[in-house]
Amino acid sequence: MSRRKILLIVAYDGTDFNGWQIQSAGRTVQGVMESGLSRMHGHHVRIQAAGRTDSGVHADGQCVTLYTDIDTVPADRFAVAANSYFPRDVKAVESREVPSSFHARYSALAREYRYYLLPSPVPLPHHRRYSLQLRTTPEVGALNRMAGLLCGTHDFATFAAARDTAPDTVRTIYSAAFFHQGPLLLFRVRANGFLWKMVRSIIGTMLHCKGDVEDFRRRFHSAQREEAGPTAPAVGLFLHRVEYDMNGV
Amino acid sequence: MSRRKILLIVAYDGTDFNGWQIQSAGRTVQGVMESGLSRMHGHHVRIQAAGRTDSGVHADGQCVTLYTDIDTVPADRFAVAANSYFPRDVKAVESREVPSSFHARYSALAREYRYYLLPSPVPLPHHRRYSLQLRTTPEVGALNRMAGLLCGTHDFATFAAARDTAPDTVRTIYSAAFFHQGPLLLFRVRANGFLWKMVRSIIGTMLHCKGDVEDFRRRFHSAQREEAGPTAPAVGLFLHRVEYDMNGV
Repeated sequence: MSRRKILLIVAYDGTDFNGWQIQSAGRTVQGVMESGLSRMHGHHVRIQAAGRTDSGVHADGQCVTLYTDIDTVPADRFAVAANSYFPRDVKAVESREVPSSFHARYSALAREYRYYLLPSPVPLPHHRRYSLQLRTTPEVGALNRMAGLLCGTHDFATFAAARDTAPDTVRTIYSAAFFHQGPLLLFRVRANGFLWKMVRSIIGTMLHCKGDVEDFRRRFHSAQREEAGPTAPAVGLFLHRVEYDMNGV
Repeated sequence: MSRRKILLIVAYDGTDFNGWQIQSAGRTVQGVMESGLSRMHGHHVRIQAAGRTDSGVHADGQCVTLYTDIDTVPADRFAVAANSYFPRDVKAVESREVPSSFHARYSALAREYRYYLLPSPVPLPHHRRYSLQLRTTPEVGALNRMAGLLCGTHDFATFAAARDTAPDTVRTIYSAAFFHQGPLLLFRVRANGFLWKMVRSIIGTMLHCKGDVEDFRRRFHSAQREEAGPTAPAVGLFLHRVEYDMNGV
């Protein structure tokens, strides 16, 4: 029996999940996906993800791999077949076969996260699950100057969560900028990797600096965790895309 | 004590409501709004809406009036003050004072509804509450030719719900067209008024005709309810805007 490695690109609404990783208690994305895939296969199936998103964090481009012994479903139809085993708030968007050497986490070259802000004096019901409401409108020019400081290879220790165990806090940010999208203000950030809660810490610190770009620069360059502002809530954060070198895949 | 008439522009997520109108059972938008406003005022408050949306229908521009005897809140701050008495899925976006002759329903000159389609082989979790998924991509050129037929003053009896008691099924559609918006296909329709379930019946009939514009024309011009396609689900429909003559208001 042939055994193929399948890559699923997965979207989920993090609102009703206790994060990605299976835990002793609580509904997790990994939990409902492994349970669905196990029912589909008739035996236990384990999956690997590009990154473990925290409780409440969303994804529209999480990457997940599994081995399948089902040989009746073409790789590009696997997403649709698997979706009937997944709940409404997690769905595979796309599927393809990858070589067994492919690793969802370690083969990743870059990741993009997005964070949605809703500058509005009142909360808007249709955006409440997917954005952070700001009662006042931040100055986008200042936010973009702060974002510009992040680009390049830097020590991001300021934005490393206290519990993070990463030995090395140097990362390379390829691009970081704010965009208007309807009533929303969208932060797009693409890097070779991210520290735990780094995007939420960046957003929290930017908002904490209230338009003072020099204050943000000082806090960032201090590389001291104590200089970070409060971590922004999970509600606005999306794992948007994971990039791989797909030559020959 | 002064008594002002306040107009609230209201957004709600219709998913968890049994429609607008208070009923013997079930959670309704009118119910939670009157209950919140009554707590705010310390006595029972009744409201009037521009239109009664059905179960599951959303709004981002419903218009609602009430009389208030609270004279400590400026009219333009009333929305924010009232919002603390409303649940997360219904919020006032804006407020202003209107003359007592203003009527949320009868003073309306035009209304705009929007219907969101999601042409996608797989359902997307973040759009599941606010759009109708179509497994195949409809031909937008044909949809727009159908939409063009609707514009002007016509008998819309084909799209009148069976239980509708409106004596007159003639309405004037000012504009009707489809627009791409990210992964969504958005139908915007603006008219002097709408029959009950008219927008959902139009969408259902358009999709039923599968790109055959002549078939749609024949069904529309027949002015026979039996010629309508299945009514499209509520999930994609938004009451977007109600227009009033605000001269002197």
